[in-house]
Amino acid sequence: MTGTPAPFTADDYAARMRRAARTAADAGLDGVLVAPGPDMVWLTGYRPVETERLTLLVLRPGEDPVLVVPTLEAPDAAAAAAAPALTLRDWTDGTDPYEAAASLLDRTGRFGVSDNAWAMHLLGLQQRLPETRYASLTEALPMLRAVKDAAEIERLAAAGAAADATYEEILKVPFAGRGETDVAADLADLLRQHGHSQVDFTVVGSGPNGANPHHEAGDRVIEHGDMVVLDFGGLKHGYGSDTSRTVHVGEPGEEERKVHDIVRAAQEEGVRAVRPGAACQDVDRAARAVIADAGYGDRFIHRTGHGIGVTTHEPPYMIEGEEQPLVPGMCFSVEPGIYLPGRFGVRIEDIVTVTEDGGRRLNTTDRELMIVG
Amino acid sequence: MTGTPAPFTADDYAARMRRAARTAADAGLDGVLVAPGPDMVWLTGYRPVETERLTLLVLRPGEDPVLVVPTLEAPDAAAAAAAPALTLRDWTDGTDPYEAAASLLDRTGRFGVSDNAWAMHLLGLQQRLPETRYASLTEALPMLRAVKDAAEIERLAAAGAAADATYEEILKVPFAGRGETDVAADLADLLRQHGHSQVDFTVVGSGPNGANPHHEAGDRVIEHGDMVVLDFGGLKHGYGSDTSRTVHVGEPGEEERKVHDIVRAAQEEGVRAVRPGAACQDVDRAARAVIADAGYGDRFIHRTGHGIGVTTHEPPYMIEGEEQPLVPGMCFSVEPGIYLPGRFGVRIEDIVTVTEDGGRRLNTTDRELMIVG
Repeated sequence: MTGTPAPFTADDYAARMRRAARTAADAGLDGVLVAPGPDMVWLTGYRPVETERLTLLVLRPGEDPVLVVPTLEAPDAAAAAAAPALTLRDWTDGTDPYEAAASLLDRTGRFGVSDNAWAMHLLGLQQRLPETRYASLTEALPMLRAVKDAAEIERLAAAGAAADATYEEILKVPFAGRGETDVAADLADLLRQHGHSQVDFTVVGSGPNGANPHHEAGDRVIEHGDMVVLDFGGLKHGYGSDTSRTVHVGEPGEEERKVHDIVRAAQEEGVRAVRPGAACQDVDRAARAVIADAGYGDRFIHRTGHGIGVTTHEPPYMIEGEEQPLVPGMCFSVEPGIYLPGRFGVRIEDIVTVTEDGGRRLNTTDRELMIVG
Repeated sequence: MTGTPAPFTADDYAARMRRAARTAADAGLDGVLVAPGPDMVWLTGYRPVETERLTLLVLRPGEDPVLVVPTLEAPDAAAAAAAPALTLRDWTDGTDPYEAAASLLDRTGRFGVSDNAWAMHLLGLQQRLPETRYASLTEALPMLRAVKDAAEIERLAAAGAAADATYEEILKVPFAGRGETDVAADLADLLRQHGHSQVDFTVVGSGPNGANPHHEAGDRVIEHGDMVVLDFGGLKHGYGSDTSRTVHVGEPGEEERKVHDIVRAAQEEGVRAVRPGAACQDVDRAARAVIADAGYGDRFIHRTGHGIGVTTHEPPYMIEGEEQPLVPGMCFSVEPGIYLPGRFGVRIEDIVTVTEDGGRRLNTTDRELMIVG
């Protein structure tokens, strides 16, 4: 739980790149085109900003990885953790970067491409190689980063423990009379105090704002009698946290208790459905059935969960229609909710990792409806 | 120079959206598909995070703007400044967002698409509408946001003045014996003190690090006798700043003075080339000629400039091959440099706005080689 984990090495990254190329080949692809962002971070440790200047990692089965990079960013690329395992191919302002990349690709091949690659860059490649086909990694290799190894799960557990410590401490701060943004700032401070290098979201949805699942935090002053949805997370040592609890300012009323109990039971059933071989959609169905049976089916307006790793939001998705089987090492949220427009919302969320015989929560704070002041 | 400018109104955004649709029609496009990011901010004031969930603004000549949005983000979209001018079309997790968007598009049409739209989303549309064609906005409508109106230039001037004040004050801090990251932190603090809501970059390239134009700031301790490239900027009131000056710790040597003089002359000639009707590449050529004539042509390894607006990096680009004529209201950087690997670098940069009869600098601090302590 403490200390900084050893950084991933060039060998670690080389192994990931080989695995990606092999997985691509198994899926009938001729390679993977990786844009700056989480795929590149996971595969190389390199974190350039995605811009109009093309940076593209080209992975092909049986070939060494090549990183196409603007000349003026080549020194940064050469300093990346994976650099010993990469061939850099740099291009200068005024030359055609797509030509440089296209020369590496099979003209009639099919390639997976990072979801977040810029449309501009994909169009540039499509123009040079009109017969090459592309599929987003979410479509073609959705599980590329989904199964975490022990070193990754250790980081996710540490991030989860930091988020849990944040929750324990936020219960002690005053809520009534303070703005949502004030409590959100407390959450961000606590996450950083507990080792987060990046805070991705600090949702404080009080009263009616809690009924908007993507409300962040606003000007509203929290009042006595409010339900408050808290949903927060970010990155610690490069891996994500994401947990939600719903608290009440003062004693809750009967319906508030009832709705919270339903969501808690739904979350429990969702986690119980986690085991190797179950489909992602089974987790969604298990949680959703509890809420639907209680008569709130139309008030649970989002999927039950999403994967987590070097981002706080990635495949696999726990959603109806996702038949992907769960595999030990997958890590994702289980976060059902009920949203009553104009009144309040409830959401409870833990990160769960698939084990050999079930699921293990990486968030373990009390899921009772806690009363704050 | 002081005070907060009046926010842009729904009418302002409606006018921009109409202009975008009309410009698209003039360019032979059937519409524009706008992703979260700077295009969407400029057209609507709406700032969702780009995720795997599709949010897409569809602009078509003669039709009202439609914003395709995930149901759970619809309340946020409805609160955007441009909302009164938008029709929201929301889609729920589990339904097909591309079908929702595709139903708005001409099946054989040609559309401009935001550069930074995710490849995943473009591929989703291409799959639904295989005969529809797409072009990046940089290719199809590169000048969509390039010509700024008076209210925008006022904001850019305020951001430039804040960056200038930052430079004046950084000259007074100690350099020798401190880390690059310490001076970078000072720059960020000063930019925020002068009203920046966002700091995008704080380059402190001391000694040999200055020879890497995209070096940010590292562990190196600045020494007496170092040249130090400073390049910093961000957003104030939603519009960008970006300025560079190169300073010297203690008295510079002869070659350092000479190289600085060449860059200063090159920057001067670049700015002098700015006038309506000149091509973007003329600005690059004017600056580059000075450096080439002095024998350092192969050490100026990037283009001369880039546009600035709601981002710190956008078209138009001052680069060989860019024949786009300059138009009054365009705003961009003029930032030649000379980079001597292993030794030092020099860069000088101002934002310039095209006026009726020339160019006006939005950065006006001294361009002499200043000596710091």
